[in-house]
Amino acid sequence: MAKTVARRRFARDRVLDAAQALFTERGVGGTSLQMIADRLGVNTSAVYYQFRSKADIVVTVFRPVFEDITRVVRIAAAIPSQEVRREATISGMIELAVRHRRTTALLHADPAVAELVEAVGEFREAFHSLQAILAGPEPDPASRTAVAVLVPGIFGAAADPAVCDIPDEELHRLLLDCSRRLIAA
Amino acid sequence: MAKTVARRRFARDRVLDAAQALFTERGVGGTSLQMIADRLGVNTSAVYYQFRSKADIVVTVFRPVFEDITRVVRIAAAIPSQEVRREATISGMIELAVRHRRTTALLHADPAVAELVEAVGEFREAFHSLQAILAGPEPDPASRTAVAVLVPGIFGAAADPAVCDIPDEELHRLLLDCSRRLIAA
Repeated sequence: MAKTVARRRFARDRVLDAAQALFTERGVGGTSLQMIADRLGVNTSAVYYQFRSKADIVVTVFRPVFEDITRVVRIAAAIPSQEVRREATISGMIELAVRHRRTTALLHADPAVAELVEAVGEFREAFHSLQAILAGPEPDPASRTAVAVLVPGIFGAAADPAVCDIPDEELHRLLLDCSRRLIAA
Repeated sequence: MAKTVARRRFARDRVLDAAQALFTERGVGGTSLQMIADRLGVNTSAVYYQFRSKADIVVTVFRPVFEDITRVVRIAAAIPSQEVRREATISGMIELAVRHRRTTALLHADPAVAELVEAVGEFREAFHSLQAILAGPEPDPASRTAVAVLVPGIFGAAADPAVCDIPDEELHRLLLDCSRRLIAA
């Protein structure tokens, strides 16, 4: 019985790995369930045995990222000082962007993912809370612009092949420096 | 005769408008030639009369952006001072990101577009020249990280609905301020 569960998890993980590779290559919108099955050398029925739909696969791939965003927001929301709250949020966002480098590349990088974020209630809330904390209450155009640069900048940079040789810890520190300069206004 | 040319241009522009709207909604990878035809209420043959392939449409949509990037790079390359050259490049990049807000949103936002940039020689050269000028010769990890934040940050921000109420000129100025802080290191 334990063996069956392990086998089933292995099969699920293989589908998720293949899906993620295809999302990176072709975008979420450009990937079909048939392509995922082809990549694994199986029939689509084998994929449907693990997941209800392509949307189910997409949500499963992105869930860990949004769970981490939710955690960052929850930790930050409990901090009374607005400045400290924002700093903690930025550092948390960078940490997860770097740790999930492969997945977060898609986060700011695909209209199909943006649509998914809006469609799934918990994802939408996590992302909007993140942006609200970063912008602060009643942000002026300069603050809104800085946040609009910061979020795709961090997620885009973490996924950029030009920095893939920089170790996670150093990249986290460098991105934090960038964020501080950007938000310092 | 002149009328026929005008009509043909009108038909081409309609295809390009429909394609761009679908690219924004579903990503380039998630848009088929059939969907473009459906959006226009015509047969695919009517679309094929104007364009050889979906790739032909994609290249046509992005050509103006890359022509502008090439122009920015050419102007900057003639400036002897490295610092002035970078400043001119950043301001030029922001100007075109803001002017082409709708199109540039896709530029850093779709694996299918990244693939296109690599596939089309002139596009690839324009983009790599832009990144090389921004990073400077033999950039250290901090400079590489700042440039990796800057490019998706600028293109992402220009396309962000959160700043769509800010007029072009003001947004250009605010993004230039962000870039100066980011690159100042």
